[in-house]
Amino acid sequence: MTDQEVKIALDALSDQIDKYAELLVKKGCAISEGSQLVINASIEIADFVRRVQRAAYAAGAEFVTVIWGDQESSRIMYENVDLARLSKTPSWKIEQLNSLAEQGAAFLFLSSDDPNGLKGIDPEKPAAVSRARNLECDVFRNGMDFGKNVWCIAGVPAAEWAKVIFPELSESEAIYRLWVAILDVAHASGEDPQSAWETHNATFEKTKRFMNSHQFKELRYESSNGTNLTIGMNPGHLWEGGAGKTQDGTLFFPNIPTEEVFTTPNYRKVNGTVHSALPLIHAGQIVKNFWFTFKDGEVVDYGAEQGKDVLTSIVSQKGGKYLGECALISKNTPIRQSGILFYDTLYDENASCHLALGMGFPECLKGGLEMNSDELLAHGVNQSTTHVDFMIGADDLNIWGISDDGKEIPIFVNGQWAWE
Amino acid sequence: MTDQEVKIALDALSDQIDKYAELLVKKGCAISEGSQLVINASIEIADFVRRVQRAAYAAGAEFVTVIWGDQESSRIMYENVDLARLSKTPSWKIEQLNSLAEQGAAFLFLSSDDPNGLKGIDPEKPAAVSRARNLECDVFRNGMDFGKNVWCIAGVPAAEWAKVIFPELSESEAIYRLWVAILDVAHASGEDPQSAWETHNATFEKTKRFMNSHQFKELRYESSNGTNLTIGMNPGHLWEGGAGKTQDGTLFFPNIPTEEVFTTPNYRKVNGTVHSALPLIHAGQIVKNFWFTFKDGEVVDYGAEQGKDVLTSIVSQKGGKYLGECALISKNTPIRQSGILFYDTLYDENASCHLALGMGFPECLKGGLEMNSDELLAHGVNQSTTHVDFMIGADDLNIWGISDDGKEIPIFVNGQWAWE
Repeated sequence: MTDQEVKIALDALSDQIDKYAELLVKKGCAISEGSQLVINASIEIADFVRRVQRAAYAAGAEFVTVIWGDQESSRIMYENVDLARLSKTPSWKIEQLNSLAEQGAAFLFLSSDDPNGLKGIDPEKPAAVSRARNLECDVFRNGMDFGKNVWCIAGVPAAEWAKVIFPELSESEAIYRLWVAILDVAHASGEDPQSAWETHNATFEKTKRFMNSHQFKELRYESSNGTNLTIGMNPGHLWEGGAGKTQDGTLFFPNIPTEEVFTTPNYRKVNGTVHSALPLIHAGQIVKNFWFTFKDGEVVDYGAEQGKDVLTSIVSQKGGKYLGECALISKNTPIRQSGILFYDTLYDENASCHLALGMGFPECLKGGLEMNSDELLAHGVNQSTTHVDFMIGADDLNIWGISDDGKEIPIFVNGQWAWE
Repeated sequence: MTDQEVKIALDALSDQIDKYAELLVKKGCAISEGSQLVINASIEIADFVRRVQRAAYAAGAEFVTVIWGDQESSRIMYENVDLARLSKTPSWKIEQLNSLAEQGAAFLFLSSDDPNGLKGIDPEKPAAVSRARNLECDVFRNGMDFGKNVWCIAGVPAAEWAKVIFPELSESEAIYRLWVAILDVAHASGEDPQSAWETHNATFEKTKRFMNSHQFKELRYESSNGTNLTIGMNPGHLWEGGAGKTQDGTLFFPNIPTEEVFTTPNYRKVNGTVHSALPLIHAGQIVKNFWFTFKDGEVVDYGAEQGKDVLTSIVSQKGGKYLGECALISKNTPIRQSGILFYDTLYDENASCHLALGMGFPECLKGGLEMNSDELLAHGVNQSTTHVDFMIGADDLNIWGISDDGKEIPIFVNGQWAWE
């Protein structure tokens, strides 16, 4: 495409991009009369941020706070500030996130960073910032973890990210192509994305009913790349997926797109080895072809063809050696079928069955939302200062559910639901 | 110039722009080993912000906080949020500015906004935000007003601003021309801008000595556009200009560029009428050909060919009807000689003698830095929630200093110092 053709194509997409902004505001963040919205976004995607702002006010928001970030500025900070200084969260940042959460704001996180943007930076540094923030901004953190605040993560194209995905295209065409892909996989390319999400949400219900009614004792994973892993489930575990729900019953979509059903396994009962199916992008770095070996829940060995130090920084965090999530996703999803590697967890995790090291989800255990941290841990829900998803859904992945009486029921056959 | 020529010219300017960044960091903000810097800037000038960040760390800064703003996002907020809601400063914003001031940070304000960017917005709204912030962020405000914190305002080209100044040029050429103009009038286009500022600062000393030693009782202003104004001085008033000094003796430059010597007059002793010599840009709006009539210090009448409601919003603020500053600037300054109307007070106020409605300067009174607000008021120093400069330096402006014994000494003749 010539630059002129790209410009025309992008202009033609403008109304659809507004519909996407409205989808994030109304379905993702459940904004209605009197809501407060907080937008976390890079300065690079200012045009889209302003669309979201307008959509939020049109939906009745009483106030929209924009928290701007800039990956390049962050990089300069990481290059010049030492770990100890970075591990202190400024008092105003704590007040910012906690007070907005306290006031019941919805939090929208727009993801657009260059996957290679922090290459060469000691991964301990961004990890320290995020760990300190998670610990100190407790009202904010708990507000999202315990169903008090609505939150939503969604992607927005920016130049560097688009060029990593489409290295053969010009910058402007790469951005255009990424818009088309994002709208498509987010079920937001049609006439009425909000209705599309109501329909989409219904498909999760069937799968959740199947998994929740079986209450498997454990899941066994096998694929030809060397994965051979058994994951123990908690009594009373709950499979979630699609819309989230706050304690007061507000429906929202924490991830746009989302294709997963997921639960939190027993963090002490994981044994065997699991191999990655897709690269992991974490703290602005890429980890390729990696594996973990677990014994009684703990990561006892791990390796990677590229980026092993990123894994080291993850497992070094409090609770980072234990699983907090296992998620099931058929290989027949728009994301996997797009054939695009997005280099962004939000998208790539929805292309494939995945696991996560770190924090478990209280809502994935009956009564979990009323438990404190110690009680959750006692019930097998990992407590951690991190949560990192990694993709394990090989094309020939098989998964069996093992029931209390030892029966083995096929859940996944060759990377897709057994009944698909 | 073709786009290609502009690109080459801008590339050639890159090192000079880095020198400008270093000037702001080292001379403007006095950054040295262990300093903290806070940069307030628009997302549009991110490239320059990153240069400042790098220069600050290179000068030994321990931490740089960037507070991003976006005029377009602010506009959307003003369009949708009512005055009462805007009059509340969020608790985290108070904590942000106060805690950083408390820690001794230097504050750099980079000015790049579109002078017309808030056209059509009720000027009461930005005024309310700024009034609330000045009242509630008291540690921050007092830190700058009472010589505890270093601060500096400087300009950086952005597209919309450049296009207002150079409407006949292409966007990229307008930005380039504005860079050339800004570097030039800021004494930052030579080999060593930091030395140039040391030399520049020395020229203020002679003028300040003359004005301070005379201790005039009042100044009388006359020009052919109708200005006929007498301004009473406070006993013990001090003329300032050039470098500022914190209470602990750190030298810094609050304005880059600066050409003015200024003091705070007695806010009760202003009589007569004064006419503007240049437009006033305030809260994103333009006021043209305006005038004020004072009686015993108070604005009793005013008018404007365009933008009178902006004047109304200024004089409606606490202390907004009284003068807080009078500043003397010869018409022979680089800014006036550039012939450019910058549509930005920082530049345009340095093209011309000006006055300011609102807050007076405690450092312009002997012992003023040790006085509280009531004491300052009792000594004739206006107290206000605003401070708005406006330009009155007509080409034929004459100013006389009247001494205690009634002698009239010419200070300005035809818009320049009597001895020039």
